[in-house]
Amino acid sequence: MITGGAGFLGARLARELLADGTLAVAGSAARPVGQLTLADQAPVPADLATDERVSVLRGELGELLRPGGPGWAALTGASVIFHLAAAVSAECEADFDLGLRANLGATQALLAACRAAGSKPVLVFASSLAVFGNSADHPLPAVVDDQTMPNPQTSYGVQKVIGEQLLADYTRKGYLRGRAVRLMTVCVRPGRPNGAASGFLSGIIREPLAGQRAVCPVDAHTEVALCSPSRAVAALRRAAETSGAAWGGRSAVNLPALTVTVGDMVAALERAAGPAVTRLIDWAPDPGITRIVTSWPARFLSERAEYLGLLPDPDFGSIVRSYLAETGTEGGRPGR
Amino acid sequence: MITGGAGFLGARLARELLADGTLAVAGSAARPVGQLTLADQAPVPADLATDERVSVLRGELGELLRPGGPGWAALTGASVIFHLAAAVSAECEADFDLGLRANLGATQALLAACRAAGSKPVLVFASSLAVFGNSADHPLPAVVDDQTMPNPQTSYGVQKVIGEQLLADYTRKGYLRGRAVRLMTVCVRPGRPNGAASGFLSGIIREPLAGQRAVCPVDAHTEVALCSPSRAVAALRRAAETSGAAWGGRSAVNLPALTVTVGDMVAALERAAGPAVTRLIDWAPDPGITRIVTSWPARFLSERAEYLGLLPDPDFGSIVRSYLAETGTEGGRPGR
Repeated sequence: MITGGAGFLGARLARELLADGTLAVAGSAARPVGQLTLADQAPVPADLATDERVSVLRGELGELLRPGGPGWAALTGASVIFHLAAAVSAECEADFDLGLRANLGATQALLAACRAAGSKPVLVFASSLAVFGNSADHPLPAVVDDQTMPNPQTSYGVQKVIGEQLLADYTRKGYLRGRAVRLMTVCVRPGRPNGAASGFLSGIIREPLAGQRAVCPVDAHTEVALCSPSRAVAALRRAAETSGAAWGGRSAVNLPALTVTVGDMVAALERAAGPAVTRLIDWAPDPGITRIVTSWPARFLSERAEYLGLLPDPDFGSIVRSYLAETGTEGGRPGR
Repeated sequence: MITGGAGFLGARLARELLADGTLAVAGSAARPVGQLTLADQAPVPADLATDERVSVLRGELGELLRPGGPGWAALTGASVIFHLAAAVSAECEADFDLGLRANLGATQALLAACRAAGSKPVLVFASSLAVFGNSADHPLPAVVDDQTMPNPQTSYGVQKVIGEQLLADYTRKGYLRGRAVRLMTVCVRPGRPNGAASGFLSGIIREPLAGQRAVCPVDAHTEVALCSPSRAVAALRRAAETSGAAWGGRSAVNLPALTVTVGDMVAALERAAGPAVTRLIDWAPDPGITRIVTSWPARFLSERAEYLGLLPDPDFGSIVRSYLAETGTEGGRPGR
């Protein structure tokens, strides 16, 4: 099962699982992906919805997954659940109730449903670098490592921390097998802008390449921690496949980050696509977005992830080239 | 308002506030304590219930504090709320649903009610040293300081961490003025044993002094972090009285701890009351209790608390003497 299965990462993960056809669950031998349930409030892309191995559940998780509800049978039969459904950072800052409902409430409902089902699934939870933050009482270290204390400065980050804590406790109690991974900002996201404060980090690449203007709301010197879509999906799969012993504990795993400045990103875009493209970027600082984005750390030393074989993207040029290959003339599929 | 106002700490806090008659809220000038609302599922002690300044709300917080509910008017009029209501550690280990409902659910309901009320009260949240713990992925340092990462190893501790995070976010959004304090094990608690894993730390003093046998379920070398009832209540009051600037951030404040071994405690009891009393202690190790209690840290360096003028008890002998004075021949009031 994939919650948020209609989203960009969820759909990409679904396509990879269906293409490979197998998944090795928590250190066991690889098994065929017989059935894949995509739960989302939004419609699932047509290529997935029409795959005979895919079932679609549309609605709120709490309603879908209640005992006897429309998703109950799928939940009780799921050996792995990827919990990607979430409202994103800027949305949650603008609408406090949305964040409580879509992040906290939906995660609580999913965990309670797994416990009620009694099937002890592997539950991969997509947490975020937004669990970290800088404040006077807890200054962010120069480099975030596996021992750095979460200190979220946004509602989204708070809700991700809470999800991690609940997941760890449900795991400790034996109700499920939790694996929380903290994703970096995934870039380049195809498709349309979403409500994430980090959304512009994809927009300033994607829109100019499509001949459209894009606003960059932060200073060129702003450092960010990025991860390509392919590496983000690989990390989610690795989390599901790793044995409990190799996973190394109930706390969340920081994924590796490529650290770049926004100026570095634009320079790489210019090398790949020329100055006519980067001239489409409008530099217009936005204090609200800047506050959120600069509250997140940019430099990571992610040793647990490296031990699991997960490495950062080598440079931003490679990310731009992958994006061009996947969405351009080389036969990739545009995002929704 | 005091939630958990019928409990030992809540009732003691209420008596002190009523006796003093004033409280300086968040750095403002001292104001009279005109009205005190005690919310609890249990009955409030008679001396408090009959005080004309006291109103009693009996029931679950979520029901009491819903808009238009029986406690709505009291909530909207409260300038300070002490949120002490909780299910305790061993109870929550034995009954997972109880912890989710009584700790997580009730705290969420209180926070939502404060936001709906719009009155921006000071909300003092009694958190706990149980937010800390030792695990292979996050070993506990030798001394816990203000920068140590919470890493709870019990459901109770997880629920306290979540309460802290929600409180910080509601504070950041301006819905209330949160002050979370992490209490040490309060000792000596008068009255009857409760369901806390740490309950024996009071029982091995209280019961022998009353001529009754008591079980000590941990080894004499076990170190624990204690705080006397009077200092715990003083810390709660200080949290309410301190200005936001002096409080120093939205994260929880570790209170100071007196670090002693259980053997030290029994030796102090013997000095105060003689060997006939300490011979009433039965040493019978309990692996479950030992696991919970030894997962908590025992040594603290609590600089933020010291800056606020909060200091640890000087030694365990002074705690025993205070207990004797408060419950014995010197006119103290026995706990419920």
